[in-house]
Amino acid sequence: MSFREDGSAALDWVASYLERVGELPVLAQVMPGELRARLPMSAPEHGEPFADVLRDLDEVLLPAVTHWQSPRFFAYFATTSTEPAILAELLAAGLNQVGILWRTSPALQELEGVTLDWLAQLLGLPEGLHGHIEDTASTSTLVALAVARASAQDRRVVLCSEHAHSSVDKAARLLELELRKVPADDAFRLRPELLDLDDACAVVSTIGTTSSTSVDPVPEIADRCQAAGVWLHVDAAYAGAAAVCPELRDRFDGWERADSIVVNPHKWLGVPTDCSTIWTRRPEAFRDAFSLVPEYLRVAEDVASLSEYTQVLGRRFRALKLWAVLRCYGRAGLQDRIREHVRLAGLFESLVRDEEGWEVVAPRPFSVVCFRRAGSDELNEQILERVNASGEVFISHTRLGGRYVLRLAVGNFRTSEDDVRLAWDVLKREAAAL
Amino acid sequence: MSFREDGSAALDWVASYLERVGELPVLAQVMPGELRARLPMSAPEHGEPFADVLRDLDEVLLPAVTHWQSPRFFAYFATTSTEPAILAELLAAGLNQVGILWRTSPALQELEGVTLDWLAQLLGLPEGLHGHIEDTASTSTLVALAVARASAQDRRVVLCSEHAHSSVDKAARLLELELRKVPADDAFRLRPELLDLDDACAVVSTIGTTSSTSVDPVPEIADRCQAAGVWLHVDAAYAGAAAVCPELRDRFDGWERADSIVVNPHKWLGVPTDCSTIWTRRPEAFRDAFSLVPEYLRVAEDVASLSEYTQVLGRRFRALKLWAVLRCYGRAGLQDRIREHVRLAGLFESLVRDEEGWEVVAPRPFSVVCFRRAGSDELNEQILERVNASGEVFISHTRLGGRYVLRLAVGNFRTSEDDVRLAWDVLKREAAAL
Repeated sequence: MSFREDGSAALDWVASYLERVGELPVLAQVMPGELRARLPMSAPEHGEPFADVLRDLDEVLLPAVTHWQSPRFFAYFATTSTEPAILAELLAAGLNQVGILWRTSPALQELEGVTLDWLAQLLGLPEGLHGHIEDTASTSTLVALAVARASAQDRRVVLCSEHAHSSVDKAARLLELELRKVPADDAFRLRPELLDLDDACAVVSTIGTTSSTSVDPVPEIADRCQAAGVWLHVDAAYAGAAAVCPELRDRFDGWERADSIVVNPHKWLGVPTDCSTIWTRRPEAFRDAFSLVPEYLRVAEDVASLSEYTQVLGRRFRALKLWAVLRCYGRAGLQDRIREHVRLAGLFESLVRDEEGWEVVAPRPFSVVCFRRAGSDELNEQILERVNASGEVFISHTRLGGRYVLRLAVGNFRTSEDDVRLAWDVLKREAAAL
Repeated sequence: MSFREDGSAALDWVASYLERVGELPVLAQVMPGELRARLPMSAPEHGEPFADVLRDLDEVLLPAVTHWQSPRFFAYFATTSTEPAILAELLAAGLNQVGILWRTSPALQELEGVTLDWLAQLLGLPEGLHGHIEDTASTSTLVALAVARASAQDRRVVLCSEHAHSSVDKAARLLELELRKVPADDAFRLRPELLDLDDACAVVSTIGTTSSTSVDPVPEIADRCQAAGVWLHVDAAYAGAAAVCPELRDRFDGWERADSIVVNPHKWLGVPTDCSTIWTRRPEAFRDAFSLVPEYLRVAEDVASLSEYTQVLGRRFRALKLWAVLRCYGRAGLQDRIREHVRLAGLFESLVRDEEGWEVVAPRPFSVVCFRRAGSDELNEQILERVNASGEVFISHTRLGGRYVLRLAVGNFRTSEDDVRLAWDVLKREAAAL
């Protein structure tokens, strides 16, 4: 194979894909098992040209792709793999750095430190935090709660809002901690007066919950945690990116007092999956909980490796794509995108609010709108399935106050006002057809 | 920015890098903190051209890169990011699939199933296993032991050889399981007659231990686990790749009886970090331990998502690079590389054995040679540091039978006989200079 020729074809494929992704059905229009049935039962005996892989990607795989890169992807949290980040992933794969010890890749370890410092500054976090990158927030939260458990001796209760992400449940289960869900108020925010911190080792407070993007009252929670000596973990996986805009900073009051904070640049900062960043003001607690250096990894340099702050030994060069995005967008470029998304969500919210027979069902602090058609849960579920089956836009749902609710999340860097208006037109059309 | 122009420059950078990587000093020749001091303290205010990122990668980062892609990288387990896999990572970053539910990427979920089936066949594993991909073996082993714990109720002891990988220690710590290290025999293999399985929930048996690549007697261990109803996890993270060669299959006797098996294609199968594959014959036990589907992820399709078999919710499209490698090398292509590496390790072993004043200190079942210069530990440590400081080759060390031991691992697809002979010449030269 010629790497330059095949590479040129692969690059051209990605460039064309990004040019035409807006025209493809957003949600994959296949049935379960359909792709598998089209693939051979075994690997080939002899190597095939890379051109065949590329052809099959186009002809066989693509119909089974849900287009997260589409400007009309409005489900879950919409994301973007930006051009500089895509190319940084190419470079990272070419270099194949394996971060085990500092010496196995000084570039990986030091760039990870530098980019995490840069990002902390952009988000207005305090100086002197220790940051590192995990794959997803599931891992970041697991790691934070493991440290909280190790720091708290016999206290084994974790508290979070009833709206906290399911990864908190999964982390508590793996760590065998007792998870207590605290009721939320009418705006889906944890009610701090209901926190009973006896036996608690940690509180998980969310800025931008998954269902409604509600913001827990972190200052009051921090007061209580501080008084009781309880670890405060702030989950800002989605919303944290918004802290690059000073005018949105008020939603983050108190997070600077957290023991650990997670933000996912792979959600709203133009970085492809996976890149979850975690900061702590208590790095020694992380190291106490995780450091374990076997003989075959003992070396002359007196530098703690990043694996001493987390569960996994090896890490790939994720910092490179974060670095590429921070450099190629800059603070101003990222602010522009976040502001525009918040504006577009505001526009969509006002369209819903102004239309009879529809309602907005939650406050909208960021770029996600929770709404529903007046009527039954079944009706709204049918609207969702029809809208998604159209392929024109892709939205998701949740349940708030016992009711089935539609969610529209703006977050793709290619999304324009036209896309948002189209989403609203499709929703009205499909609702009217029922 | 023009994606095609910048992409062409990035691709050219990778192509040139792969052409010249053999000429670069293998171990990064920088001091701790040196790279950090050369980078700005903050992200830029305004976006910069991607060309500047590429320039700084070359001028600022590259001196701090340890070249895992070098044919003279012989440390830890040598790896390769092959050309098809590099391009697959480019494609994956362009598509930015996020595997949360089947519907968020049918292509990701079904290709992951298919490639894991293909690889299981290539390795001679039984039909019908359920496979999925994790980031690293640290996670694969953690996940397997979590399932073992959940399946075993009150039994909370894990047993492994004294030569098992440190990730077993870390997993046991996170899961609060009691880890008991079982002494090994003179060939560094777990002694199965010393396994006391009262209170045991799992045994971790290793095929290809990290220090010496010794092979635990899996059939005997499997007999005991089966009789006691104890979960058997087989760690073949490095060596598993060798099972593509029928003539090396005898080293894997008994692994087909494991409850879970981990093999890392990112070690010896040409796939860049991260790609750790795990198979189980008890998928329902995985699902019982990990499944948790919140309201906002409930959908019409009745398809279990991969996140129900593990801790993390989101996953990236790792199957694409594995697919590209299996297709572009084929069974025969992978066999050729593994065979050549085993041959080269055998050659190196014979060079050491034939030289007075040097000794081979462990059997060599695969492509790693453990050896030392007659004399003190300090002498061998000095040899290692001098060899690595030369930049000509990079090797690592371990401790066996209380002694400091040098390790040479063949595993990079670009390594030739000349590279191995050069390594031996450098070792002899630096030893003679002391």
